[in-house]
Amino acid sequence: MASIITLTTDFGYDDPYVAAIKAVILSINPNAIIIDITHSVEPQNVLQGAFLLHTAYRYFPNQTIHLAIVDPGVGSERQKLIVKTATAFFVAPDNGILSYVIDELFSLEGILVQQDEGLQRATFKTGLEAVAITDPRFWRHPVSPTFHGRDIFAPVAAALSLGISMYEFGEKTNSLHILPLPKPFLDSRGDLVGQIIHIDRFGNLITNIKNADVPRKDVIIELGGYSIRGIYDYYAQGTGALAVWGSSGYLEIAVKDGSARDFLGVTTGAQVKVILTKGA
Amino acid sequence: MASIITLTTDFGYDDPYVAAIKAVILSINPNAIIIDITHSVEPQNVLQGAFLLHTAYRYFPNQTIHLAIVDPGVGSERQKLIVKTATAFFVAPDNGILSYVIDELFSLEGILVQQDEGLQRATFKTGLEAVAITDPRFWRHPVSPTFHGRDIFAPVAAALSLGISMYEFGEKTNSLHILPLPKPFLDSRGDLVGQIIHIDRFGNLITNIKNADVPRKDVIIELGGYSIRGIYDYYAQGTGALAVWGSSGYLEIAVKDGSARDFLGVTTGAQVKVILTKGA
Amino acid sequence: MASIITLTTDFGYDDPYVAAIKAVILSINPNAIIIDITHSVEPQNVLQGAFLLHTAYRYFPNQTIHLAIVDPGVGSERQKLIVKTATAFFVAPDNGILSYVIDELFSLEGILVQQDEGLQRATFKTGLEAVAITDPRFWRHPVSPTFHGRDIFAPVAAALSLGISMYEFGEKTNSLHILPLPKPFLDSRGDLVGQIIHIDRFGNLITNIKNADVPRKDVIIELGGYSIRGIYDYYAQGTGALAVWGSSGYLEIAVKDGSARDFLGVTTGAQVKVILTKGA
Repeated sequence: MASIITLTTDFGYDDPYVAAIKAVILSINPNAIIIDITHSVEPQNVLQGAFLLHTAYRYFPNQTIHLAIVDPGVGSERQKLIVKTATAFFVAPDNGILSYVIDELFSLEGILVQQDEGLQRATFKTGLEAVAITDPRFWRHPVSPTFHGRDIFAPVAAALSLGISMYEFGEKTNSLHILPLPKPFLDSRGDLVGQIIHIDRFGNLITNIKNADVPRKDVIIELGGYSIRGIYDYYAQGTGALAVWGSSGYLEIAVKDGSARDFLGVTTGAQVKVILTKGA
Repeated sequence: MASIITLTTDFGYDDPYVAAIKAVILSINPNAIIIDITHSVEPQNVLQGAFLLHTAYRYFPNQTIHLAIVDPGVGSERQKLIVKTATAFFVAPDNGILSYVIDELFSLEGILVQQDEGLQRATFKTGLEAVAITDPRFWRHPVSPTFHGRDIFAPVAAALSLGISMYEFGEKTNSLHILPLPKPFLDSRGDLVGQIIHIDRFGNLITNIKNADVPRKDVIIELGGYSIRGIYDYYAQGTGALAVWGSSGYLEIAVKDGSARDFLGVTTGAQVKVILTKGA
Repeated sequence: MASIITLTTDFGYDDPYVAAIKAVILSINPNAIIIDITHSVEPQNVLQGAFLLHTAYRYFPNQTIHLAIVDPGVGSERQKLIVKTATAFFVAPDNGILSYVIDELFSLEGILVQQDEGLQRATFKTGLEAVAITDPRFWRHPVSPTFHGRDIFAPVAAALSLGISMYEFGEKTNSLHILPLPKPFLDSRGDLVGQIIHIDRFGNLITNIKNADVPRKDVIIELGGYSIRGIYDYYAQGTGALAVWGSSGYLEIAVKDGSARDFLGVTTGAQVKVILTKGA
C-alpha cells in the first residue's frame, strides 16, 4: 500500500538517525512514501515541533501517517500514542507534540483539561480516536531504551501504513498530554497582545495571532520598539518592516528583501501588540 | 504517472514550506517522484538559484518537471511560467530564474533582448514553448498571496505531471524575463577575464569560464593575488591551489585536501584572469 | 525493480551534486528508491563517513545497495569497488570508507592486513565478494575526472539495482583498503581506554566502547576531567552528565536536556576511561 508517512524530528541532517527510521519503515512497508516535514526542530523543543507539524500536516492527503519524534523522555514511562483525527494519523510520544493539532481541532472545547506533572492532561469524548501503544508484537527487538523512534514508533507507523487497525497496537485511551500554548489576549486597553512563535529562514516573524482575531487591516502593530502601520497582502507590496497574513493564517512581520529578525532584533517569545481601536 | 518533479528553492530545510509543497504535489499526483535539487539558495537570490538549477537539471530524464521557486515578488503582478525545452519542463516565476537554462540553449542567439524594469525581456521565435499561468482551475484555493509555491506552482507542476497539456494552464507567450549574466571577456592584452560565480561546500571556486573558452592547459590563472600554473585533470593531481575543469564544464580553483575559499580568501564575484598567451 | 539505493557523501545539502547523482540513478532505474543516509560527512573525512555508514546500513532491507562517496582521490588511480556481504551491496571508492563495515564483519579475523601507502590493505578468503569496477560500458560518458560519483558510481549502483550481476562490472578481487580504526584497550591498571568517535546533534558523545567490552553497569567513567558514576538505561533517568548504552551499541555520554559536548568541553578523539575494577 503506497501510504505516505511524514517525519518531524529533532534529529537533524548530520546523524544517521533519520536514515535508520526510514530503513525500518521500508523494511516493513517497501511501498511507503516517506516525506520529511523537518528534522531541524531544536533538540528536545517539543513546543516548536508541535508548531511545525501543525503548519505542515494539513496539506497532505487524507489518511497520511505523521510520525513526530521529539522525545526527551525516551525510555521513561511516558505513553506512546497513535491518534486518529478526521483527516490524519499521528504516531508520537505523549508529551505534547500534538498540542497545536489538538488545539485547533477542539479550540479547547469538548476537552477537559487538568494539570498533570507540568503538562496538561486533556480528556476528550469525541473528535479523536487514540490508542496507547503497548503491544510489542509490532516493535523492533531488542528495543533500544534511547531510540524508540527506530524501534517502536517507526515500525508501528509502518505497520499502520499496511492497513493494520490502530486497535491492534494497544489499548484505546481518551486522554493525552498537551502543552499550554501561548495565546493572544485582549489587554485592559482593548489591544490584542500576542507573541512571536516562530522565525523562519527568511527572518519572517510568525506570531500566534490569527486572521479571525483581527477584523481590520488598518491597525497599528507594535513590536520591539517599532510601530508598523497596516497589514499588507504580500511582501513585495511594502517597504521596510511590514505586516502580512502569512501562508498558515498567522500574522507575520517581514522586511521586504531582508530579514525582520535582523532588522527588528527580536527573538521567539517577543511580544507583539495589535492596536485595534479605530483612529489609533 | 510516475513523473519526476524536482524542487529548487530558497526555503531551507528548517521550515515546513518544502513539506507543504510536496504534500500538495502528492495530493494531486500520488505517483510523482519528488527530488530536491537544493533548498539552500540564499534567500531571494534568484541568480544563484538560476545557476544551481542549470547545473543539475540536465542529468534528469527527459520530460522531468523542474519546479523552481525563488520568488521575492510573490503576490505581485509578475508572470508565472511553464516553459518547455527539448528535454525538460520548468514551472517558475518569471523573474530570471531560468536565465542560465535559457542562455545555454540560445547562447543569446535567436532571442531579442530588451531592457524591462531592471530585468531583461527576451523574446524568442523558436526553441522554446512557454505559457503564462493564468487559469485558476488548477490552483489550490484560497491562494495565499505569500506562498504561490504551495498554492499555484506546486499544483500546476503536479497537474502537468499527470499529462495535462501545458496549454491548459494559460496563454502561450513568446517572451520572458532573464537576468544579465556575468560573462567572461577578452581584455585589451588578450587575457580572458571571468569571475567566481559559485563556491561549493568543499571551498572549490567555480568560475564562469567554460572549456570552449580556453583552448590550452598550459595557461596561467590569476586570482586574489595568486598565480596558478596549468589546468589539471583532477584535484588529487596537484598540490596547494590548483585549477581543474569541474564536473559541469566550468573552470574551478581548488586546494587539494583543503578549501580554496579559505586558502585564497576570495568570495563570489571575485575576478579570475586566464593568461592565454603562449610563453606567459 | 524497486531496489533501495542509499547515499552517504560529503557533498552537503547546498550544492547540486546530490541531485545530479539521483538524476543519473533515476535515468537508469526509474523505480529505484533513493534514501539519504547523510551528506554531512566533513569534506574528505573518510573515517567519519565510514562510521556513519556503518551505524545506519544495518537497518535497511537485505540487498539494499549502499553508495558511499567520500572520495578525495577522485580521478586518481585508486580502485573503485562493488562489495557484497551477506546482507548488503556497497559501491564505493577503495579508500577505507567500508572500514567499519568490514571490521565488524571480520573482527579483523579471517583477513590478512598489510600496510599499503598509509592505508592498510586487507586480503580476505571468505565472507565477502568484491569486484574492482573497470568496465566503462556501465558508466556515464564523458567521465568527469572530478565527479566519479555522478559518472561511475551512480550508474554502476543503478545498473546493479536492475539485477545485473556484480561480475559484469569488472574483475573479482579479494583485497581492499581499510583504515586503521581507533580501538579501546586495557591499560596497565586494568582500565578500559577508549575515545570519542562521533558527537551527534544533541551533543551526545559516542565512544568506540561496545557493550561486550564492559561487563557491568556500576563502573566509573572518566572524561575531560569529570567522573561519571554508573551506566543508565536512558537519558531521562539521570541528571547532569550521564552514561548510557547508545542505540548503536556504543557507550555514550549525554547530559539530560542538554549537550554533553558543551557541558564537558570535549571534542572527537578525546580519551574516555572506564574503570572496571569492583569497588572503584
